[in-house]
Amino acid sequence: MKYGVTRDYVINMEVVLPSGEIIWTAANVLKNSTGYNLTQLMCGSEGTLGIITKIVFKLRGFPQKTVLMMIPFVTNEEACKAIAAIFTAGIVPSGMEFFEREAAERTFEYCDKVLGSPVTTKLTEGMNAYLLCELDGNDEEVLMRDAERVMTVVEKFQSGEVLFAESAAQKEELWKIRKNISPAVNWHTLTKSDDVVVPRANLPKLITGIKEIGKRYGFNTVCFGHLGDGNLHVNILKENISNERWENEIPKGIGEIFKLTVSLGGTLSGEHGIGIAKRPYMTIAMSEVNLNLMRGIKKVFDPNEILNPGKIF
Amino acid sequence: MKYGVTRDYVINMEVVLPSGEIIWTAANVLKNSTGYNLTQLMCGSEGTLGIITKIVFKLRGFPQKTVLMMIPFVTNEEACKAIAAIFTAGIVPSGMEFFEREAAERTFEYCDKVLGSPVTTKLTEGMNAYLLCELDGNDEEVLMRDAERVMTVVEKFQSGEVLFAESAAQKEELWKIRKNISPAVNWHTLTKSDDVVVPRANLPKLITGIKEIGKRYGFNTVCFGHLGDGNLHVNILKENISNERWENEIPKGIGEIFKLTVSLGGTLSGEHGIGIAKRPYMTIAMSEVNLNLMRGIKKVFDPNEILNPGKIF
Repeated sequence: MKYGVTRDYVINMEVVLPSGEIIWTAANVLKNSTGYNLTQLMCGSEGTLGIITKIVFKLRGFPQKTVLMMIPFVTNEEACKAIAAIFTAGIVPSGMEFFEREAAERTFEYCDKVLGSPVTTKLTEGMNAYLLCELDGNDEEVLMRDAERVMTVVEKFQSGEVLFAESAAQKEELWKIRKNISPAVNWHTLTKSDDVVVPRANLPKLITGIKEIGKRYGFNTVCFGHLGDGNLHVNILKENISNERWENEIPKGIGEIFKLTVSLGGTLSGEHGIGIAKRPYMTIAMSEVNLNLMRGIKKVFDPNEILNPGKIF
Repeated sequence: MKYGVTRDYVINMEVVLPSGEIIWTAANVLKNSTGYNLTQLMCGSEGTLGIITKIVFKLRGFPQKTVLMMIPFVTNEEACKAIAAIFTAGIVPSGMEFFEREAAERTFEYCDKVLGSPVTTKLTEGMNAYLLCELDGNDEEVLMRDAERVMTVVEKFQSGEVLFAESAAQKEELWKIRKNISPAVNWHTLTKSDDVVVPRANLPKLITGIKEIGKRYGFNTVCFGHLGDGNLHVNILKENISNERWENEIPKGIGEIFKLTVSLGGTLSGEHGIGIAKRPYMTIAMSEVNLNLMRGIKKVFDPNEILNPGKIF
């Protein structure tokens, strides 16, 4: 979003190779065209190429002020359309988090019963999807003007009354909701969780398609995530699904979700990686040629396959 | 600088491999943790891994307003110190270009005699280094406030009277100076040009050291570049240096410049790459282990060495 993704801030790394040799991948500079980009090759390599022991990040000034809004929508699709429209209007929020009503309701219960700190924020009747939109900067006036522009944009997408966090405490509570969704969703039931990412403009098709796939395969999903980046976390709930179907049928549904994602210009993982769980689906996202290049790179770094063997591909 | 480097905007590529196979390196998404980062591996690979036939960039809103200032300084060192201080003050210019007085003088002559469009801007007596500092954004007030903050910062570094571009035409003229430095410097004489990059805070030591090395090896340098990124272009002028010394002695001086750069946490190339000219110096910037990893990656993509053989390493 406003500041891009974390990996863009990584400029140099100390790495211990499988051979035991220690290298620095690059230099402590903002621009570098000196040989291949080993730094970004290491980022997201899931420990299959080397062990990262030091990381050098580029830094940016810390913004002095933030505005935080919780924006309710009648449907997921309208919330997703609103996200793309906000960016298209030239506003670049520092945070743009999405959650379904069910995610919030489960989190309210979790905060109350498990954390013992009930949420005081109320969900409006008939509002089924929520955006947590944060703007930051150093100029109050500019922030308020952008906040008003956000309000004007979202009005076009069946949004409800926008909740402005009035105090640090209220901001904290809104973030508390977002941050506890994952434990809350995993509290009552087993889940299988995905981390798909698509171009922002295709988010409405993605979320509609996921719900359709859920209906066909008979599973309920709770969705939330970093939709400003097009990155959606799909939690598939086991609930009363039999172990047999959970192990044999549901993965086919997950495959359908990945096929849909890729057909929308997206891919399997925005941030959590592939590991073992998503490895069987890699051919949905890329060709054998890509995979063989990656296998070849793995061999160059780790000829004896001692680092995370069997991960990714 | 404000928007980072170009490669950070590249999210996906179509690449023709030496085998003739065509791949997409990634997906059209802002975040991606799906296998190794082939996109950034291709960026800056200088045509040694594949032929890039399509590139997908992420986009950002186009800023509506800019402020452009030319700031003179008594010495290169003070100009370099001022750059680090501006960023440390939390101001992030959209452009921060540096040039020595000699670069400007040669450019004025070049614009007059070669381009036939004389520069009307004057250089103040006793001011030997210049910064072209551009701020951009959508809010005039914020821009002017930041411009004033820049003025306050540079006052501490023996700066002269700041020239504010009053009109589009004047902005164009200031950029014309910067953009014609390279042809101007290469007009009268052969040059060897470097593209070193260091952490911003080490720019004063870099430029002082380069001048000392020039004295020792008997060459004159004209320096300019993107110092907001720590990226300095060093033009070594042949002038009346004999061909023998130009071919045999001066490269040793260049090696000294690279050693200094690396000792300051920097590296050989910020943007132009290594090619053949800088290949002999690669071991100054990285270990044999790094180079062998790169050679291994090259073999994975191009086992028959048909793409730019002998480039980089």
